[in-house]
Amino acid sequence: MNSIQELQLRIDDAFSAIRFPSAPADLYDPITYTLGLGGKRLRPLLVLASCQMFGGEIDDAINPAIGIELFHNFTLLHDDIMDEAPLRRGKESVYKKWNSNVAILAGDTMFAIANKYMLRTRPQAISQVVELFNQTAIEVCEGQQYDMDYEKQHNVSITDYMEMIRLKTAVLLAASLKTGAIIAGAGAVDCNHIYDFGINIGLAFQIKDDLLDVYGDQEKFGKVSGGDIIAGKKTYLYLKALESAGSQSESFRALYASHTIPSQEKVMKVKEIFNHLTIEQHTRQLIDDYYQKALQNLSCISLSVEAMEALSDYTAGLMEREN
Amino acid sequence: MNSIQELQLRIDDAFSAIRFPSAPADLYDPITYTLGLGGKRLRPLLVLASCQMFGGEIDDAINPAIGIELFHNFTLLHDDIMDEAPLRRGKESVYKKWNSNVAILAGDTMFAIANKYMLRTRPQAISQVVELFNQTAIEVCEGQQYDMDYEKQHNVSITDYMEMIRLKTAVLLAASLKTGAIIAGAGAVDCNHIYDFGINIGLAFQIKDDLLDVYGDQEKFGKVSGGDIIAGKKTYLYLKALESAGSQSESFRALYASHTIPSQEKVMKVKEIFNHLTIEQHTRQLIDDYYQKALQNLSCISLSVEAMEALSDYTAGLMEREN
Repeated sequence: MNSIQELQLRIDDAFSAIRFPSAPADLYDPITYTLGLGGKRLRPLLVLASCQMFGGEIDDAINPAIGIELFHNFTLLHDDIMDEAPLRRGKESVYKKWNSNVAILAGDTMFAIANKYMLRTRPQAISQVVELFNQTAIEVCEGQQYDMDYEKQHNVSITDYMEMIRLKTAVLLAASLKTGAIIAGAGAVDCNHIYDFGINIGLAFQIKDDLLDVYGDQEKFGKVSGGDIIAGKKTYLYLKALESAGSQSESFRALYASHTIPSQEKVMKVKEIFNHLTIEQHTRQLIDDYYQKALQNLSCISLSVEAMEALSDYTAGLMEREN
Repeated sequence: MNSIQELQLRIDDAFSAIRFPSAPADLYDPITYTLGLGGKRLRPLLVLASCQMFGGEIDDAINPAIGIELFHNFTLLHDDIMDEAPLRRGKESVYKKWNSNVAILAGDTMFAIANKYMLRTRPQAISQVVELFNQTAIEVCEGQQYDMDYEKQHNVSITDYMEMIRLKTAVLLAASLKTGAIIAGAGAVDCNHIYDFGINIGLAFQIKDDLLDVYGDQEKFGKVSGGDIIAGKKTYLYLKALESAGSQSESFRALYASHTIPSQEKVMKVKEIFNHLTIEQHTRQLIDDYYQKALQNLSCISLSVEAMEALSDYTAGLMEREN
């Protein structure tokens, strides 16, 4: 039985060992660069932890774990073009460092390479693993499309928003966990429970991201407080405040969308309204609701509490972060 | 045994039956639009014809055939962004009709959908079919990168060019044929012969495309004669002329790259040089060399001449086109 830290080392070693061809340089250099930016590598960890938990072999899961991380990095490459994001993990994004065409084609190549990694597992698991992987990829694309649609759309409901973050973020965490379970040969019912656990954890994580942007311990977070407010990004906090603002909702909408008010003043004013409407408490409650649902999903799995301890302790740790 | 026309009908019926979700509209409308543009659907035909030739079931091959065509259309969507091509099959390209972001994301989704189609075949063939599909996708991306590189590069050799068109065009035709063979359960040696046949046919087709742009029967071709010359595109004819031009090569290079000379005058002058250097004859000889190699590959396959007649007649017909 490997600890979470041992699994993380295993993943880092696997990534360190990957070598891409040297030519054509404008195709493979951006891929090497992207993987060199690192990141938490949460998704491959979920693949391995889930596989181990269900009694599977890490050797059978390591390549699909790499495949899912490659896919995640591919989506970031393309998202950065669409969002015109100049930075990724504190460094220039591929689209900015090279150009859009390079980011498009390097991304396409990463997706194809990712699919090849998904095949390197137990023969009996291949079909289900690759099907889940590509179905999830479709859903992630749907989530990105809704995200772009909602930026321009006036009347986004909280239900719309939750469905968008389910697609854009939660399904890939859920698919990572289910992939590990499939490879371990877990039963269909357990596979669905671990998937649902991933969905609920994913929703909780994303809403916590929204919360910490405004109410996080900024010194540790390393980000400017209220970045989402300054950008006018439609987050759960904003949509909940809009819903609760009653007759003030139109003036609040105008304030939030404004790019003429100085940043610090805008953050202060929006935060005052959030505080008045007890948005922090609402949001923490919702995060906890999803977390409790996730624990409920875990408890339905036909394994002992001890067998699931590594995964549940690890996700509990992620839930507790305040930065 | 189905005729080529019957296989074409089968493919058209399969495409007609495909329905995509209605939302998000900006994700799925461009996919429906792209498939509605039609096209020759050569690649799925090669999958089915090869599968049938090796004694396989069309039902096992139809979904991977669709997958390969979806992949091909995805590459066109992304290529049109990179090449800033406003038209595709006589209609607005997706990137022009919507925008680049829509074309990027719809393309990504098509690639994921394509991978799902590749899985719908005989269980024993899945792993090999999906591996070949994604390896081919990587090579097609490499080909597109070389194509973009060579546009800016001064000293492109004929060897470079042949390798570029092998990757960009020939490998997908070869993979289509090999996919049909794998699904039919053909042996590894026969799979390699049919793949090599596809490579040589693909190279012959692409060079014929280059040739017909200058020496085609333009009335039937429906294109302006010399489009490649006007655009200054590095084709086999250009590279061969450059190699043969000796001391005149620098002035020829300047003429070919010029965008200031009126189009018709440029085409006339370049064609004069081509004629002087007997480029048409050289090119027709090379096309025939590749075609003969392809026939040689076919003759190595452990099937009767009769069994291979449908495929060899069909490709012979494609080779004969003069428009």
